[in-house]
Amino acid sequence: MEHPENDPRYNGLTVNPGVAAPPSVNPYMQRRKRKPLPSAAEMVEGILKGDITMLSRAVTLVESLASDHNAIAQEVIEKCLPHSGHSRRIGITGVPGAGKSTSIDSFGLHVLKNGGKLAVLAIDPSSERTRGSILGDKTRMERLALHPSAFIRPSPSAGSLGGVARKTRETIVLCEAAGYNNIFVETVGVGQSETAVHSMVDFFLLIQLAGTGDELQGIKRGIMEMADGIVINKADGDNLERARLAQAQFRSALRLFPKAASGWDPEVLTYSGYFELGIPEIWDMIDRYFAFVDANGYFERRRAEQSRYWMYETINEQLRSSFYNDPEIKRHLAEGEHLVLANRQTSFAAARQVLDFYFNHRQKI
Amino acid sequence: MEHPENDPRYNGLTVNPGVAAPPSVNPYMQRRKRKPLPSAAEMVEGILKGDITMLSRAVTLVESLASDHNAIAQEVIEKCLPHSGHSRRIGITGVPGAGKSTSIDSFGLHVLKNGGKLAVLAIDPSSERTRGSILGDKTRMERLALHPSAFIRPSPSAGSLGGVARKTRETIVLCEAAGYNNIFVETVGVGQSETAVHSMVDFFLLIQLAGTGDELQGIKRGIMEMADGIVINKADGDNLERARLAQAQFRSALRLFPKAASGWDPEVLTYSGYFELGIPEIWDMIDRYFAFVDANGYFERRRAEQSRYWMYETINEQLRSSFYNDPEIKRHLAEGEHLVLANRQTSFAAARQVLDFYFNHRQKI
Repeated sequence: MEHPENDPRYNGLTVNPGVAAPPSVNPYMQRRKRKPLPSAAEMVEGILKGDITMLSRAVTLVESLASDHNAIAQEVIEKCLPHSGHSRRIGITGVPGAGKSTSIDSFGLHVLKNGGKLAVLAIDPSSERTRGSILGDKTRMERLALHPSAFIRPSPSAGSLGGVARKTRETIVLCEAAGYNNIFVETVGVGQSETAVHSMVDFFLLIQLAGTGDELQGIKRGIMEMADGIVINKADGDNLERARLAQAQFRSALRLFPKAASGWDPEVLTYSGYFELGIPEIWDMIDRYFAFVDANGYFERRRAEQSRYWMYETINEQLRSSFYNDPEIKRHLAEGEHLVLANRQTSFAAARQVLDFYFNHRQKI
Repeated sequence: MEHPENDPRYNGLTVNPGVAAPPSVNPYMQRRKRKPLPSAAEMVEGILKGDITMLSRAVTLVESLASDHNAIAQEVIEKCLPHSGHSRRIGITGVPGAGKSTSIDSFGLHVLKNGGKLAVLAIDPSSERTRGSILGDKTRMERLALHPSAFIRPSPSAGSLGGVARKTRETIVLCEAAGYNNIFVETVGVGQSETAVHSMVDFFLLIQLAGTGDELQGIKRGIMEMADGIVINKADGDNLERARLAQAQFRSALRLFPKAASGWDPEVLTYSGYFELGIPEIWDMIDRYFAFVDANGYFERRRAEQSRYWMYETINEQLRSSFYNDPEIKRHLAEGEHLVLANRQTSFAAARQVLDFYFNHRQKI
């Protein structure tokens, strides 16, 4: 059947033909020429002057998988190390939907009001990537993205948690050397990465929503115990009462927890990221925390502990991967597991056999 | 001055001279001759018949540090394995002073009322031993110690947590083969051993006291999240109200926790171990738990997971110890730590150098 619009007698709604879809690539754009890679010394010089382009390029090298890039990156990091450490490192976590991006936008602007600089990094290993990858879209921090004193960098896109954590820690060194005295490390509170973030920051902030039911199911067990502060978002309008109730509940729950190693009693505050209510109070809490841990010596002790932790964690991870990636070992492990699950061998006897093989086998290499 | 009692004119209180202190060793006791070691086959036969003496001797071999004893022990365990697994394994923890021994005495008698058998084991690595070592004194479970269907065994006395955990898990196998259908594994909730106990039991019970203050400081962070049930002791007399209040507080705190993998919502009950109030209700809760995890398949899944866990945990521990006990590696680690703490090398670069040395060094062996 012919289309009725073409019939001159048709007097119903008509659809204009419209214009052709534009090409998906701008035909007037020329591919920008890649600038030659600056030397390590040039990069270090630029970073120490706070040159944001140089910082970005160095971070790109840190994240690169090419080994020549890595060699330069290591040199740059090593030279930046003596200039690093002078920042407040703050971890921020919360389930998707808690309003992390809007909150960081508001928090960040508040911090920058008093001067200083802010770098926002993220840990979001590909293995844990969820719908709405964090920081995948810088524009979700609209105002911060335009601020000259803010440096926003999405999570390194590829790799294991260990790899991503290493890159983020190295990026912190570069940012600090470039004069960023506030570092936010964002993570989505549903996977393994919170422990990693917790082990590289001074203060760990958990963003929650009001409500005691399903909203909490997404948060991994154990995260609440890591928090130095819990802030309940969307405490505005109709939701204010619910937020205050959640605050009271979290406060009494935290009282049941044993004291943290820092000696600090985690605080629970309400705020509204969208309406920018309660933001200064959150920063006051963080100020109090830093004054507290500076005074009791925990700050220094924890930074040293974290450096030690990452050294040993890296070693342990490498030892495990060199063992578990050996194809012969894999075969022995599968056999062992089979016997253990069939109740024909204890877990310990099976482990012993695989280890015996490994220690004999590797000596023959 | 002479003692006034010897003066005939003295008419104050007098102290009788009393009898001499008895010798600390019974002079009539003869050192019992050591029975010859039964063969593995004899032991297995005895254990399967429920012979408590044979069971004790096999457990002693499991705990022995002598390698010939261990060889026999492994043979016995392997032959008992197919007869193991048919028990409820219950972990019990709580700070010193929470009344664990009295509670286990009461719990145990209640369980045995309906027939069956009960083994009470403990994990208390020497590295964590506290004042009033748990089960160090059997007589603290006065009635259970005399019960013919109860087998009480203190913690293996020497060794690391890994070693003690292995011995306890192997002892569970032997007890199950000997027909013990209820296994309690006790631990003191202040160290690292709760994770180990949690990884070898089906149900994890946390004994608490009323009060929201200092009593809780002793409990390690994270333990509350492991608990399948929290029971508040000393809910009697004047303390009843405080215990009920604590119950309400723990209940609302647990609601803030994310759901456990089992799907089970941990319950909070009050009881009195000393006055034996509320004990049947605790067992009803445990019954409900087992019905729940049998129905949803979690019981089987978790047992398999635990077997796998212990196999991999043993391997990881051995790999780490073979690395960290190497004197050359120790020297390199100390150097690396020094550079890292002086901010002259990143944690990752230091780790890389130690690993490079290890992987080259070990190939030369």
